[in-house]
Amino acid sequence: MITAATLDPDTLHTRAQRFYAAQMQRLDERDIEGYAGTFTIDAEFSHTPGRPPSRTRAGIVEDLHEFHRRFADDPMQRRHWVGMIDLALAEDGSIGSTAYCLVVKVRPGQPPEFVSTVVHDVLVEINGKLFTRSRHVSYD
Amino acid sequence: MITAATLDPDTLHTRAQRFYAAQMQRLDERDIEGYAGTFTIDAEFSHTPGRPPSRTRAGIVEDLHEFHRRFADDPMQRRHWVGMIDLALAEDGSIGSTAYCLVVKVRPGQPPEFVSTVVHDVLVEINGKLFTRSRHVSYD
Amino acid sequence: MITAATLDPDTLHTRAQRFYAAQMQRLDERDIEGYAGTFTIDAEFSHTPGRPPSRTRAGIVEDLHEFHRRFADDPMQRRHWVGMIDLALAEDGSIGSTAYCLVVKVRPGQPPEFVSTVVHDVLVEINGKLFTRSRHVSYD
Repeated sequence: MITAATLDPDTLHTRAQRFYAAQMQRLDERDIEGYAGTFTIDAEFSHTPGRPPSRTRAGIVEDLHEFHRRFADDPMQRRHWVGMIDLALAEDGSIGSTAYCLVVKVRPGQPPEFVSTVVHDVLVEINGKLFTRSRHVSYD
Repeated sequence: MITAATLDPDTLHTRAQRFYAAQMQRLDERDIEGYAGTFTIDAEFSHTPGRPPSRTRAGIVEDLHEFHRRFADDPMQRRHWVGMIDLALAEDGSIGSTAYCLVVKVRPGQPPEFVSTVVHDVLVEINGKLFTRSRHVSYD
Repeated sequence: MITAATLDPDTLHTRAQRFYAAQMQRLDERDIEGYAGTFTIDAEFSHTPGRPPSRTRAGIVEDLHEFHRRFADDPMQRRHWVGMIDLALAEDGSIGSTAYCLVVKVRPGQPPEFVSTVVHDVLVEINGKLFTRSRHVSYD
């Protein structure tokens, strides 16, 4: 197993950027299974205040399918921008990530709406690939 | 000729970020020749729905001069933010790039306006430098 | 002393991104001393038109404490997004940085407000760490 500890901080930062880009493009395309596949099998994901976190990859899939049904008739395109990523290597080899996430919501013919959030992630590297082990989103 | 295939994915990602920053800063300063110079000589550029793509570097220059004449009397500053870049190496050594591009439009004394787009690029590396060979912009 | 000249441009770009993320997260958390500590001891910082630049790290602390008192009763969360970073190595080993900075201002229950700026920095590397030696912010 390759651990993040073997990566230099600059390479790790770039890898996290690549990870977030691929992860969020899947979410924005409503590829829920693909998005959930970027989490570890036992991950925890808390994305909405007052809503209990979903657990396990299967639980995340179920939670997001339920969550997206609210938007089923809403022609809204979301774009999750993750940036200003600040990483901290933990002693167990996991990576704490605190990053800004600006959600752009676009409906046809209307100006975009924005939601400003901060993502608190724990990332782990398994066989040279990053995964989200836990995610907690706070809202400004 | 150095090809992108010789770069590791992390270095390539960073190089694409540097490329987009320099390219878009030129566009936003209305340095149209400088911007066109970041495309290959035979490039194709499709930036506006319903408007046929411009072809060749000279064609891009002509197209953008014509396009910017619309704004000649408009004291608008544009800022093209490219992010969430997802790259895929093609077998011919070119690089497919799918990236978010948020366009910020600022007029004096007014709140910024935003346009949310996705840039679908083919990048190529020539003599160690990146160029855009084709660009298609889709609008949310 | 390690100088930026010893870094390749890709590594330097990533290091600048990491620097800005950590620097701005401190500012947004109103950790003014921590933010000022990312400037050199003799730095110059000009952030608001018509306001004289603050000088020295101690001067930056004082200036920002005074500046933030205006917002003391304002439940506003700011998020400084720095991106589209374009770096140029100077002959003295310092690094010119021209980057976009989009400031997101969020107040409870209200849609975010935005300010579009460009940051003109001179960064220097001291003992392998980046610092801002001067910063001038222009507003779109």
